[in-house]
Parts: sequence; C-alpha cells; structure tokens
Amino acid sequence: VEVPDRAPGKRKGRRPGGEDTRGAVLAAAREQFAEHGYDKASVRAIARQAGVDSALVHHFFGTKDQLFRQALEFPLDPRAIIDVVLAGDLDGMGERIARFALSLWEEPVVRTRLLATLRAAATNERAAQMVREFVKRELVEVVAARLDLPDAQLRVELIASQIVGLAMTRYVIGMQPLASAEIEQLIALAGPALQSYLTP
Amino acid sequence: VEVPDRAPGKRKGRRPGGEDTRGAVLAAAREQFAEHGYDKASVRAIARQAGVDSALVHHFFGTKDQLFRQALEFPLDPRAIIDVVLAGDLDGMGERIARFALSLWEEPVVRTRLLATLRAAATNERAAQMVREFVKRELVEVVAARLDLPDAQLRVELIASQIVGLAMTRYVIGMQPLASAEIEQLIALAGPALQSYLTP
Repeated sequence: VEVPDRAPGKRKGRRPGGEDTRGAVLAAAREQFAEHGYDKASVRAIARQAGVDSALVHHFFGTKDQLFRQALEFPLDPRAIIDVVLAGDLDGMGERIARFALSLWEEPVVRTRLLATLRAAATNERAAQMVREFVKRELVEVVAARLDLPDAQLRVELIASQIVGLAMTRYVIGMQPLASAEIEQLIALAGPALQSYLTP
Repeated sequence: VEVPDRAPGKRKGRRPGGEDTRGAVLAAAREQFAEHGYDKASVRAIARQAGVDSALVHHFFGTKDQLFRQALEFPLDPRAIIDVVLAGDLDGMGERIARFALSLWEEPVVRTRLLATLRAAATNERAAQMVREFVKRELVEVVAARLDLPDAQLRVELIASQIVGLAMTRYVIGMQPLASAEIEQLIALAGPALQSYLTP
C-alpha cells in the first residue's frame, strides 16, 4: 500500500518552486479543498496557507482545477488497490476490499485526502468529472476486465458506491455507532455485502 | 411517497403565514438548528427569533421534525421510510429498501433536495451534525428497535451508508454505467447487498 508521503526535507527558507514549496502548496491545497469544497476553496487562501504568493502557485501548478488534479492524484495509487483486490480468489474479495479501504482510512493523511476528494466531487461538477474519469480509467475498467462476471463494471461501481458511502457516513456525517465502530466489526459486516456484488 | 410540500396558506402580505413570515421562520430555524443542533433547538426559540408565536409555527410547519425537514429541505419523511421498511418480512427488507430509495430519487424534486442535503453535510460540520442527529433519532433508532438483530443500529447505519453511497456515485459523481443503469437492475444487485446487513 502506498501511503502518500509528505514532501521530503521540510526545512526553513523555502525556495520558490523547490520541493519544499511544492509540498507546502499541495498540502495546503488538500486541506483547503477538504475544508471548503472545490468551489469555495481559493488559490489565494491556499497560497497564504503555504506561505507563498498566488502567482507562484499559478506558475507552478496552473489553474485551480489543475492544482486540484495534482492534489487529488495522491489519495491512492490505483495499482496498489488493484493488487490487493485481485491478489486472491473471488470468494475473499469482498472482505479484502473492506479491509483495505477501512485500514487505509485509519491513516489521517489518507483520510484527509479522501475526504477532500469526496467534498470536491460533491460540490463541483468539474471535480466530479475528474474523479469519475480517474476512477473509471484507472480502477473500474482494470478490475472489471479481470472479473469473469456479467455486468462487471456495474458491479465494481456498486462496490465503489458502498466504499464511498462508508466514508461519507463514518467520517463526514459521523453517524454513531458507525463512526466509532472497530474496523474489524465493520469488515465482518461490510465484507459479505461487498461480496454479494461479486456473486452472479 | 410524501414529497415535501410547502405549508398551506401561502399568501401575499405581511400576515401570519405569509411569505415574509414563512421566510423568517425558516431562516430562524436554520440558524437555531445550526447553532444548537437538532436535539437542543426548540420551536419556542425559533418562533421568538422570527418574532411570531410558537403556535403559529406549529400551525404552518407542523412538528419540530417537519420544520427541520423544511428548513434543511430534507427530502424524506422518516415515517414514510419506516412504513416501507417495516411493512413485510425481514427476508424482503433489503429489496424493499433498495426499491424505495431508487424509485424515490427518480423524482427530480426529491433528488434535488437529497443532493442539497448531502452537499450541505459534506461541506459543513453543523449541517452534518443536524443530519446525523435527525437521521439517528427519527430513523435509525426507530427501525433498529424493531429489528431482532445484534448491533441493530450499526446494521441500519451500514444500510444507510450504502444508500448514501449510491446517491453519491449515481447522481453526484455520475459514474458510468452506474448513473444510467435501469433501477430494476440496481435493485436486483443492491437488494442482496442490503439484505446481507440484515443477516446475523
């Protein structure tokens, strides 16, 4: 599992365009997108949080949506997901997916980025489009092609829908007892539900 | 299916029940619910802030939960959901829930308000708190109390998570083929997944 890492060498005295600055801008972007959603987040606020000028952000990252895409591409490496999903037999796939997703979200950095992506997608059509295209091309099509099931893409997307819904209700809405349930209990319940999507 | 309606007596002029009063009451309700949460907000305080009598608020908006739904534009009457969910045996409950949710969202008005609620909850902690408290008290606790299952509340919330996830991926993110799938096909696939949460 590739856990997104912080920019290396966080030191004082950042140089414009250096690794430190890039990392600071991307971290600020993820935080601002997560907190305010795509529309309300501003490049100015992102630049301010990163301690740099807006013009520098535009120069190195382009437009707001280009910055978003760069910030977005970090939550997960789709290849890592695919490796886990396909590493084993079909019978255990539901549980593997549930365990992978729920374990990953225990990482605060991953969770912050996932929620930033969800909030952006929920409030902005272009962000939704970015997520949609990215997930379909990098994840759904690849996994579905390896499954010998009718309507494989639809089934994979329904699994994704349960994963998205878990993130929304557990971390965003914070429903209780769901938000504080142990992940092993959630895996035991969600695994069979996901598995049912893999049962023709 | 009860589609949220406007209160009766929609007239012009600054009379009790007129547009001005309605707007003032709804604005006060949003503020009080946002500030104090669903449980602690009181109709009396809302009426006071709007400069009207509590009896008038009840007359035009109904009970506290009806007022809340109108203020937040919450798309569903929890009692209607509960009636459908509990009207039949446990074996068919997953399919009934899937059919109810997916059919309801075909109504543009319901869908618009559902998505407004989801977006508000996704981007605003106070809205999330309101949704969380409202759903728990009016829906999760009532349904769970009628189910003879261990961890009944958690199971009901996991079902809610799948419903939320379906709304997000089908209508907000717009994943394909999920977004354009026929609802009968989705019911056939999601019904068993929801049912697995009802299987001890």
